[in-house]
Amino acid sequence: MNEYRLRRRVQFYETDVAGIVHFSWFFRYMEEAEHALWREAGLSIHPPEGEFGWPRVAAAFDFQRALRFEDEIDVHLRIAEMARKTIRYECVISKDGHQIATGTMTIACVQKKPTMRAVEIPDDIVQRLSASKT
Amino acid sequence: MNEYRLRRRVQFYETDVAGIVHFSWFFRYMEEAEHALWREAGLSIHPPEGEFGWPRVAAAFDFQRALRFEDEIDVHLRIAEMARKTIRYECVISKDGHQIATGTMTIACVQKKPTMRAVEIPDDIVQRLSASKT
Amino acid sequence: MNEYRLRRRVQFYETDVAGIVHFSWFFRYMEEAEHALWREAGLSIHPPEGEFGWPRVAAAFDFQRALRFEDEIDVHLRIAEMARKTIRYECVISKDGHQIATGTMTIACVQKKPTMRAVEIPDDIVQRLSASKT
Amino acid sequence: MNEYRLRRRVQFYETDVAGIVHFSWFFRYMEEAEHALWREAGLSIHPPEGEFGWPRVAAAFDFQRALRFEDEIDVHLRIAEMARKTIRYECVISKDGHQIATGTMTIACVQKKPTMRAVEIPDDIVQRLSASKT
Repeated sequence: MNEYRLRRRVQFYETDVAGIVHFSWFFRYMEEAEHALWREAGLSIHPPEGEFGWPRVAAAFDFQRALRFEDEIDVHLRIAEMARKTIRYECVISKDGHQIATGTMTIACVQKKPTMRAVEIPDDIVQRLSASKT
Repeated sequence: MNEYRLRRRVQFYETDVAGIVHFSWFFRYMEEAEHALWREAGLSIHPPEGEFGWPRVAAAFDFQRALRFEDEIDVHLRIAEMARKTIRYECVISKDGHQIATGTMTIACVQKKPTMRAVEIPDDIVQRLSASKT
Repeated sequence: MNEYRLRRRVQFYETDVAGIVHFSWFFRYMEEAEHALWREAGLSIHPPEGEFGWPRVAAAFDFQRALRFEDEIDVHLRIAEMARKTIRYECVISKDGHQIATGTMTIACVQKKPTMRAVEIPDDIVQRLSASKT
Repeated sequence: MNEYRLRRRVQFYETDVAGIVHFSWFFRYMEEAEHALWREAGLSIHPPEGEFGWPRVAAAFDFQRALRFEDEIDVHLRIAEMARKTIRYECVISKDGHQIATGTMTIACVQKKPTMRAVEIPDDIVQRLSASKT
């Protein structure tokens, strides 16, 4: 499972006084798709008492069009690169086939104890996230 | 310290497409004032490795007027009742002396370990939150 | 259409450092269900260039249990009272059949122009929201 | 006024179950500083009935360290480039002198009516945002 398409409707509280979705929400849409991708791969990015954490190292969006209340959107996330300790995603948000915004996000694998430090991504996770979508 | 007045400006991301502050934010304003009250009393409601938690048991708001982007508001919170295991706050949000909304919130004291359960509020906290504002 | 059941998953950004869903999100869950109910009735609560607005007059929640990341929840909203100018909803949020929280929300119908003022709910809306779920 | 330093405390609802500030909030911190900069320059980025809008064209953050509940942070925003139709900001978020994250944001000037289209930034705004901090 190395990509995922999330279909989602824009909620009222995601809009702002300019009448459109506040730009901070695009980053949350991207993360929702990420967590759905992980679930689809049989994983949780934050299991109870989990040994590893996945802090965001970088996140970016270019915005081409605006989104409005009740729009139905597609959030297409794919793993663009899986390095030893980091994963980089690419994301395209679209509506009715029109591209709205494009994003990227890089996350790092950290071991929580005894002290937070970057570690290699566990093999099981690498394998589950590397499998092609069937 | 049994009451607190927080002065605060409405942020852009707190507004919605109706042009006003989304109602869910009033609950966050109330909580901001609560945590500021605790700090003023020399406490943190969520210290690192803290023994106690303070889940919300009930929260309510009546809305009389709307708030808009860049409005400066006053969030006046006071402890209306300190019971053995719970605290009840009353809150008035106003702008330029005009009442905007009134709220209430009840929180319970819980011990986190070994299992989450309601306990009596520690004496030190009772005393710090009972002192009159000087 | 006078009631609606929304199934929804708890998102990561809805949690807080206490490890549970921040209480402000319950109000947003309730509103999501409201807007889904309106859509199911063939309505939008905020159509582009709409003549009417629906400010919240009151909102309240009692919290019985906590919600956590990735929980799947049911948000059951029903219209408890339709008055001439206001609608009152009752809401039950549950997980796996266990009640998590109960809420209420009252909204008012206002005409936006020439000046914002409370008006009677238009007949078409009354009828659509009064029909029993089929 | 071409730069601004905002001092701000991390709020409880900005944290997530990983115990740190959710990354989406950094973008809101950056925008808070932007709007404070505009106010300091005698402007509002969204005046009532304003002729112009300022949609975000791009936004990005690199995250070096985490923020936690009640941290006091500095959000230093400066105008890195003022083009004819766009403004690019650079932002450094720090705590106790330690750099936490660095961001950039580009906004475009659009005229709202008759149809939304990119236009040159009005002279008055250029001048107010170009003046050195005194």
